[in-house]
Amino acid sequence: MDRTDERDEAARVDAAGEPLRIDAARLLDRLDALAQIGAIEGTEGCARLALTDEDRAGRELVVAWMRDLALEVTIDVIGNVVAVLPGSDPSAAPVMTGSHIDTVRTGGRYDGNLGVLAGIEVLETVRSSGTVPRRPLGVAFFTNEEGARFPPDMLGSLVYAGGMPVEVALDIVGIDGARVGDELDRIGFRGPAPCPGLVPHAFVELHIEQGPVLEHEGLDIGVVTGVQGISWTELTIVGQSNHAGTTPMALRHDAGYVAARIATFVRELALELGHPQVGTVGSIDLHPDLVNVVAARATMTVDLRNTDEAVLADAEARLAAFVTDLADAEGVSVTSRSLARFEPVEFDPGIVDLLEELVVDDGRPHRRMPSGAGHDAQMLARVCPSGMLFVPSRDGVSHNPAEHTDPEHLAAGADLLLRAMLRLADA
Amino acid sequence: MDRTDERDEAARVDAAGEPLRIDAARLLDRLDALAQIGAIEGTEGCARLALTDEDRAGRELVVAWMRDLALEVTIDVIGNVVAVLPGSDPSAAPVMTGSHIDTVRTGGRYDGNLGVLAGIEVLETVRSSGTVPRRPLGVAFFTNEEGARFPPDMLGSLVYAGGMPVEVALDIVGIDGARVGDELDRIGFRGPAPCPGLVPHAFVELHIEQGPVLEHEGLDIGVVTGVQGISWTELTIVGQSNHAGTTPMALRHDAGYVAARIATFVRELALELGHPQVGTVGSIDLHPDLVNVVAARATMTVDLRNTDEAVLADAEARLAAFVTDLADAEGVSVTSRSLARFEPVEFDPGIVDLLEELVVDDGRPHRRMPSGAGHDAQMLARVCPSGMLFVPSRDGVSHNPAEHTDPEHLAAGADLLLRAMLRLADA
Repeated sequence: MDRTDERDEAARVDAAGEPLRIDAARLLDRLDALAQIGAIEGTEGCARLALTDEDRAGRELVVAWMRDLALEVTIDVIGNVVAVLPGSDPSAAPVMTGSHIDTVRTGGRYDGNLGVLAGIEVLETVRSSGTVPRRPLGVAFFTNEEGARFPPDMLGSLVYAGGMPVEVALDIVGIDGARVGDELDRIGFRGPAPCPGLVPHAFVELHIEQGPVLEHEGLDIGVVTGVQGISWTELTIVGQSNHAGTTPMALRHDAGYVAARIATFVRELALELGHPQVGTVGSIDLHPDLVNVVAARATMTVDLRNTDEAVLADAEARLAAFVTDLADAEGVSVTSRSLARFEPVEFDPGIVDLLEELVVDDGRPHRRMPSGAGHDAQMLARVCPSGMLFVPSRDGVSHNPAEHTDPEHLAAGADLLLRAMLRLADA
Repeated sequence: MDRTDERDEAARVDAAGEPLRIDAARLLDRLDALAQIGAIEGTEGCARLALTDEDRAGRELVVAWMRDLALEVTIDVIGNVVAVLPGSDPSAAPVMTGSHIDTVRTGGRYDGNLGVLAGIEVLETVRSSGTVPRRPLGVAFFTNEEGARFPPDMLGSLVYAGGMPVEVALDIVGIDGARVGDELDRIGFRGPAPCPGLVPHAFVELHIEQGPVLEHEGLDIGVVTGVQGISWTELTIVGQSNHAGTTPMALRHDAGYVAARIATFVRELALELGHPQVGTVGSIDLHPDLVNVVAARATMTVDLRNTDEAVLADAEARLAAFVTDLADAEGVSVTSRSLARFEPVEFDPGIVDLLEELVVDDGRPHRRMPSGAGHDAQMLARVCPSGMLFVPSRDGVSHNPAEHTDPEHLAAGADLLLRAMLRLADA
C-alpha cells in the first residue's frame, strides 16, 4: 500500500476543493428504508432471514438503488450481488467493499446493512463528484452471512472466494428444510455470474462492532486486525422417552438433562480457558418437549470462538471428551456434526496500517482490535488484501432489534470507508 | 368393605358354574383397534392429544362400543364419558371403574386405554353372563388425563370430583393456544351431564405401572396404596439477546444458560433428596433459538414428585431459592407459574385390602406399592373409596410407543378388576 501522491489528493476533493464527504442524511434514509422490510413491530429492528420473501424484498430494494446510480450490477450463482462504478483504467481490478443484508430472526438495522449501504453511499458520492479514480469501485452484498437459516454463516462470501464449491453450497438444507438452490430460484436471485468471483485489488468492510468494547472505552472507530476463529457444532442426543413420575432417577436416559449439562459445561469451559474464549449454546430443542415426559431426543448447537487457533482446537477437544464421557454415564448416544469451522483470520497489515493512518488523520479516538464475530471480509481475505472498520454498538447489543449506533459514528465510518477506497483505487 | 355372602358368590359364576372370566382376546382386539387411531407409524404406539381430531376419533370408537353393549352413556360438561350397566337396586350408587384414552404425543397403547377397555370388558362379561349385581357397574373415560396439551393433568376427573369449577376448566388454554371449551365444542364432546358428577359407591382403576418395579421383582400385580404428590412449574426466563461472538462471558444475560443450569439443578436436587423424589425438565424452549445468538428468553417446565408432602414442599422451596439466586447472579428475570399441584393421595384402606385379598386368592405374585404417576383414581378418591391395580410395564417404559405389557398380565388385571367390581357391587 503506497502512500498517496498528488494525483490521489486531487481525486479526493469536490468542486469547491473540499475533501469529499458522504451524505449522512442519505445514508440514514436508506438504512431506515431497508429496515422497514421485515420490520419487527414496535422496534427499530428487522427480520430478513436469508433467501426468504423478506430477504428478496430487501435485495430488490438495494438492487434498485444500485441501478438508480447506473452501476454495473451482476448477480452470481450463489446470489451475491456486486455493483461496480467504472474507473479510468479498464484493466485494473476493483477496490471492493460490501457486507450483507440478511439478518438473524431478531435482527437490528445496522448489522451488515451498514456496510452495504455505506458502500453504495461511497460510490454515489464519488460518482456525483465527477471524480474518476483509476480502479473501479465495487460494493457487494453476500448471501446468507448470518447463517441463521442455512449453515455455515458467511456462505456467499465463502463461495465467492472459492472456499466451497457452488454445487455443495446450492445443496445445503436449512433449519426449515429448504434448500439453498431452490430458494435462490424461488426468489429470483440465482444469477449468471460464476463463482469464485472476480478477485478485487483490495476489500474493506465497514461494520458495527456488535460488542461493547468501543463504547466502553469511549472510542469512535475500531481498526480490525483479524477475526476470531469460529467452531459451530450441532449435537443430537438420543436417550429414552419415559414417564417423569415413575422412572427412578438412576434408571433414566434423559436426553434433555444431557443437553442441559453440556450447555453448563460450555459455560465452564469458556470461563476456564478465559478471555477471549467465548462459548454459547443458543439452540436447544427437546422431543417430545412435554412437562411429564423424560426427553427422548435433544438437538442443540455449540458456538465456540477464539482468536487463537490452538486454544480453539483445545476447546473443541475438551468439549468432545466431555460429551463422550457424559453420554457413557447417562446411557445416551450423541452424534456430532460440524455446522461451520473457520480458523482465526489476520487482516492484511498494509490495509490495517492504511486504515489506522486515515483514522488518525481524521482525529478520531480509536483502537486496533480483533473481531469477535465472523464477517464477509474474512472470506475475501483469502483472495485479496482485506481489512475492516468498526463503529460502536450501544451497550454492545447486536442480533437484537435494540441494536443502535449513533448517526455521527455511522457517518464517520462511511467517510473513512470513502477515503480508504479512494486511496486504494489510485494505488 | 364387607366380605361377600352366598348371593354374591352366585353372582360370580357363569351358566356352567365356573367363575366369570373376561375374554382376553376381545380385550386385546379392542386395545389394538383403538391404537390404530393416531397410530405412530412403525411403532405399536399412538398419539391422541386431548381434544384433538385423533382424540375425537378415539372417543367415537369407544362410545360406539359402549352403545353396542346397550350401556347408558352420558357425556358431561367437561367431556367425561360414563357408561353404566344397571343393577338390581335402582337406588344404589354404582361401582365405577375407568381411566382415560388421551395420550401424550409419543404415547403407548396401554396407558389409560387399558383401564377403559378392561372396564368395558368387565361390563360386557357381566352382561353376557346374565348376572345382575345389586349395584350398577360403570366405566368412564375422563378428559385430558395426560395434561400433555392442557394443564393440569387429570383435568376431567378433577372436575368430575368437584376439584375445579367447570367454568375455570373450560377456559384453560393449551400449549397450542386452543381453549378447552372451544375444543370440546369443536369435537362434539361438550355434553349435558353436570359436574361434579354422580358420586360412585367405590372406584377401582386398572392401569399399567409405567415403571420398572413389578418387572424387576418378577411380580404380576401391584396393589396401589396411593399416589405421589405432583408439582408442575413453568419458568419463564428473560435475559438479553446478544451476539454469541462479541459478548464477553461476564457481560451475558443468557436465558438459555439459566434454563440449562436450572435443569441440572433439578437433577442434583432429586439425587440429594433421594428416592422416591424424582425431578424432570421435559420441556425447554429458547428464543430466538439460533446457533449464534445468546438466547433472550427461555421457557421450561419442572416436574417434581414425592409420596411425602413435606419433602415435596421442601423440594419446591429449594428450587425456588436456587432460581432466585441464579437469576440475580446472571442478571435475568424469572417468572414462575404453577401448572399443577396435587398433594400425595392415600387410597382407601378397605379397597386396598380387598384388592390384595383377591390377588392372593388368584395366586398372583404381587406387592403393595405407591404410584409414581398421577391417575384419575386419585381424583375419585376425593369423593368415594378408591383403589388401583397395576400390571407390569416391560423395561418400565411408558409415554413411549414401545410401551408393552404381556397379554397374560393384561388379562389377569382385567379379571381381578371384574372380581373386585362384582364384590363391591353386591356390598
